[in-house]
Amino acid sequence: MAGSTDLRKRLLAEVMRIRAVDVHSHVPAAQPHARTLRDLLGYHYYTELAHSAGMPRDALAPERPDGQVIPEMVRALAAIDNTVQYGWLIELARQLFGFPDRRLTEANWEGLARSVAAAAERPGRAAEIMEQSNLERVFLTNEVDEDLSAIDGRLFVPSLRVDGLVLKLHEPEVRAALERGSGVAVGDAAGLHRALGAVMDRFRAAGARSVSMSLPPEFRMVESTPEGFERALGAALRGEPGEAARERVLRSGMMRALSGLCRDFGFPFQIMYGVERMAYPAGVPAGTDLPRAGDTLRGLLPLMNEFPGVTYCLSVLTDSQAQELAAYGWIVQNVVLSGHWWYLNVPAYMARNLAGRLQCVPKTKLIGYYSDMYKLEFGLAKFDMYRRVLAGVLAADFVEAGLGTEEDAVRIAHLLLRENPKRIFSL
Amino acid sequence: MAGSTDLRKRLLAEVMRIRAVDVHSHVPAAQPHARTLRDLLGYHYYTELAHSAGMPRDALAPERPDGQVIPEMVRALAAIDNTVQYGWLIELARQLFGFPDRRLTEANWEGLARSVAAAAERPGRAAEIMEQSNLERVFLTNEVDEDLSAIDGRLFVPSLRVDGLVLKLHEPEVRAALERGSGVAVGDAAGLHRALGAVMDRFRAAGARSVSMSLPPEFRMVESTPEGFERALGAALRGEPGEAARERVLRSGMMRALSGLCRDFGFPFQIMYGVERMAYPAGVPAGTDLPRAGDTLRGLLPLMNEFPGVTYCLSVLTDSQAQELAAYGWIVQNVVLSGHWWYLNVPAYMARNLAGRLQCVPKTKLIGYYSDMYKLEFGLAKFDMYRRVLAGVLAADFVEAGLGTEEDAVRIAHLLLRENPKRIFSL
Amino acid sequence: MAGSTDLRKRLLAEVMRIRAVDVHSHVPAAQPHARTLRDLLGYHYYTELAHSAGMPRDALAPERPDGQVIPEMVRALAAIDNTVQYGWLIELARQLFGFPDRRLTEANWEGLARSVAAAAERPGRAAEIMEQSNLERVFLTNEVDEDLSAIDGRLFVPSLRVDGLVLKLHEPEVRAALERGSGVAVGDAAGLHRALGAVMDRFRAAGARSVSMSLPPEFRMVESTPEGFERALGAALRGEPGEAARERVLRSGMMRALSGLCRDFGFPFQIMYGVERMAYPAGVPAGTDLPRAGDTLRGLLPLMNEFPGVTYCLSVLTDSQAQELAAYGWIVQNVVLSGHWWYLNVPAYMARNLAGRLQCVPKTKLIGYYSDMYKLEFGLAKFDMYRRVLAGVLAADFVEAGLGTEEDAVRIAHLLLRENPKRIFSL
Repeated sequence: MAGSTDLRKRLLAEVMRIRAVDVHSHVPAAQPHARTLRDLLGYHYYTELAHSAGMPRDALAPERPDGQVIPEMVRALAAIDNTVQYGWLIELARQLFGFPDRRLTEANWEGLARSVAAAAERPGRAAEIMEQSNLERVFLTNEVDEDLSAIDGRLFVPSLRVDGLVLKLHEPEVRAALERGSGVAVGDAAGLHRALGAVMDRFRAAGARSVSMSLPPEFRMVESTPEGFERALGAALRGEPGEAARERVLRSGMMRALSGLCRDFGFPFQIMYGVERMAYPAGVPAGTDLPRAGDTLRGLLPLMNEFPGVTYCLSVLTDSQAQELAAYGWIVQNVVLSGHWWYLNVPAYMARNLAGRLQCVPKTKLIGYYSDMYKLEFGLAKFDMYRRVLAGVLAADFVEAGLGTEEDAVRIAHLLLRENPKRIFSL
Repeated sequence: MAGSTDLRKRLLAEVMRIRAVDVHSHVPAAQPHARTLRDLLGYHYYTELAHSAGMPRDALAPERPDGQVIPEMVRALAAIDNTVQYGWLIELARQLFGFPDRRLTEANWEGLARSVAAAAERPGRAAEIMEQSNLERVFLTNEVDEDLSAIDGRLFVPSLRVDGLVLKLHEPEVRAALERGSGVAVGDAAGLHRALGAVMDRFRAAGARSVSMSLPPEFRMVESTPEGFERALGAALRGEPGEAARERVLRSGMMRALSGLCRDFGFPFQIMYGVERMAYPAGVPAGTDLPRAGDTLRGLLPLMNEFPGVTYCLSVLTDSQAQELAAYGWIVQNVVLSGHWWYLNVPAYMARNLAGRLQCVPKTKLIGYYSDMYKLEFGLAKFDMYRRVLAGVLAADFVEAGLGTEEDAVRIAHLLLRENPKRIFSL
Repeated sequence: MAGSTDLRKRLLAEVMRIRAVDVHSHVPAAQPHARTLRDLLGYHYYTELAHSAGMPRDALAPERPDGQVIPEMVRALAAIDNTVQYGWLIELARQLFGFPDRRLTEANWEGLARSVAAAAERPGRAAEIMEQSNLERVFLTNEVDEDLSAIDGRLFVPSLRVDGLVLKLHEPEVRAALERGSGVAVGDAAGLHRALGAVMDRFRAAGARSVSMSLPPEFRMVESTPEGFERALGAALRGEPGEAARERVLRSGMMRALSGLCRDFGFPFQIMYGVERMAYPAGVPAGTDLPRAGDTLRGLLPLMNEFPGVTYCLSVLTDSQAQELAAYGWIVQNVVLSGHWWYLNVPAYMARNLAGRLQCVPKTKLIGYYSDMYKLEFGLAKFDMYRRVLAGVLAADFVEAGLGTEEDAVRIAHLLLRENPKRIFSL
């Protein structure tokens, strides 16, 4: 931790008081928090790290009872007790469930399991966790045909996930979901636009505030004519496998269509760039994807140029693009930098990347952090990790670097954790 | 700031005493310093960051009076008061103009504007600013047809800028400038070489000491025959649009021709690699260019191999190449590392990149810093930023890392800021 | 150096006590330590940095006597006394040879030369150096036809180097060496597999524990049929120059064949990815190779996917891949991260890269360091450099970051320096 101890501690105390907004998670509205310890240990960070450290993938078979799976996971996790991910688990266990220890062992997991099960029964548990985490609102990631009626708008903000629409439109199920979600038959570009518009209407009515997607590193915007897009779309709707050039036209066209809707509906477009899906097929579920060094945001920039009225909230997945991303935030008016995604969500990487952003990007264009979590409990631990990194960076790379006062630093922290997300997403 | 407080402070005091040489700027010899506050706020760092933070590009229309433009800029700059660029502005305002505050506001800008206008009238203002900045000489960047007669050689060192010659020779104006600057008609390769030689003669006679250019990331040296170059040159001189392969031959051939002249005239070749021009066309003037992650210096290396007698002073634009650049300085005899360019000119990036260089590149092959400024006032603030980073890195990554004593560290600082530039450029 | 002084010092004291295993070196079993000062100064780090700083390559001509070469090197090295490589030289000179000074000069080199020569005569000198370096075992890198009978297995562990087999099989000498080393005639794929198997048998019998190779950045695994491999192999065995596509098939096929043998023999495969050989032909011997920014491990991943039973110990050569490598260790079960290779073996790069690994990769999958040395004396200085970096990172990025206690940190250090190598290589 950089920064002089006292200054950093004072800043951390202030940062901990800020009621944050979490602009991206995968929390399911119907089951936002864990009901069992297995729910917590089932987070892909733990299953993939346990598998990486040697645990067979079969150990996680759904039909195996908790009494077998959990002790096996606990044994495997001993090999990862150095990691920040393990640190999240211990921190949330201690703060949310009164877990007294620093390591999860075969001797103490049952007590924690009982605490998790008991807490899950308490009415208002989701709100309670968010209160304890000092989180005001948590964004969800919702599929195009998802029922949004049960979402508690006091806690959650829906966001339309469009990964399938952009990347897998040739799959019949994706088309079917779009038709279900919109009530519109999709047979051509006109139908597609009607269907997407209907979905956006439905999402807006349900309180949604953004469109979000993750892109593979090979994605590049290409030019095409309306006719070219129509042809590529037709092939996809007939379920024909995507020939490469046509697939690029289709994907670019879908990004344009969605950007146009973001413009019309006033939604920011959250884009997480650079994940290669199924790069490691032997991995556990959700543990098969990898970053790829050596890529650039350049292929995405034509979209920002074409839609100046849309705010793009960008994340990248490799450290080799961290400074490129900062330069985009510095120069491109409709680019906002957002959080520290997945494989970059590690303090050693975050600290320097955050310091760089803070020193060259307008403070109004930085969304500090999002959790990317699947269960609400992780918001506490992940945001607390970020709060510590932020306090350290503000101390060392802002106040001690002579860029501003301690009071300025606290105001910046408020922007990053709360005010920028609220303004950018019109909350 | 890394490094123990006391050691760093002692080193900073020594570093501040060193009279530095600035090997690259865009200062115009005829108007080297600001005459108005608008001149200072017109630096592209402020206009592009204000635009990035939301100010419309039209706000900067040349015909708008200062009384409208400045307050609008001041309001916009509130969103960037976290950045190091804002820090430069405040530092130079305080040190060069007696500005008493830490933030520029609608309430205090008029006082600063009066101070700038008044100071501009003082005789010997340029020398005064350089004295206060502890800068001995500042390199200029001069066009091929520029009149060099009025340049004050006690303060400034001309440098021949060749961006146009290498990248835009098909534009009639570029050819015309070359003919004007040389007094030689250019119709073929022989004429081109005569013209370039005449320009170099003229520049040397005016005290010039280097050739300099910035290259786009897609630049790659390619092999070609004299006939191939002649054909490519012929097409360019006829103004024919550059077909890709022929354009590569032309650009490589121009880099060879210029390198040959650098060898013959004993000029180092300053190359700044990796800027993509007009990547963001909606940006303000000079705020449309971006770095690109994922590239390599490998395409430039054949030039270093072919001209071992030419010293190439290299800069890169993305953090993903910072360690590659250090390896080039470590291995390749005729490569010198120079400064921290543009999007890398941010303390968080500079600190680690400088630490890496200091730990693995011969100390005689490091040019610490250049300002890249357009008005002399920024030399003070930019060099002072560098001096602070240098002191911190020398403290933490050299003395405390056990690589040498405090006295060794001070000697290294003298090399980086002053002695290496003087020796390398034969000042 | 990050981390509070006291904590870091206590951790360093513990780290210094750990008896380490060095999993990769080029130490020759017959002449493992220096006999003369020239042997030490002949390490490519010194010759290439001296050349880079201006010393002519001819200065190193083998026929020149030590009395000329050494003083010329000593003069040249003054320009690199800022580097960590220079630091290694001073540290080993002081600790292993009682050198009293901090700089090597024309006035003191003769005393050091006498000490080196005298120490070389002491019986058991290799064991003595390793004792003083706190190194238990040092891996060697052995050619396919090397005589392994004289290797002292109490000190050394052979490793089969396969660079030539994978990259230069079309050279008659490579094929001849394989036939000599195996006693098998190689005329087709079946013969190749028999020969490789015989070599592996011989290496295993001599105590070898791994296969190792360095790959160029353009290497990519490609698919091929057995027939395709047979054709590519046939062409190579006939000495035909490698057409690009066929060469890719051959190289991929060789990597598969060697991976299959690693699986069958239980050997980890040490792969160092990303060096471009002879990029700078004017360099001194072993000083002609460079890293290349902008590449990715993605082209290697199919090998890991295809051979889940083989442990791949990976290193990279550019900082732009450091976080990608960490993500591979985090996700891919059969990937272990190994050391800080060559151009990344610089504290400023190592510190952040190590911090990242420590915070997101299972602690059992990290091989802390290897020396890559050519003479045993460097093990002391290089490992001590690593020990200092490790202590600093454990202090700042593990204990002070709240991920574990001081005792946990010491246990991690034992894993990285000793227990992981012993377990992974079945020592």
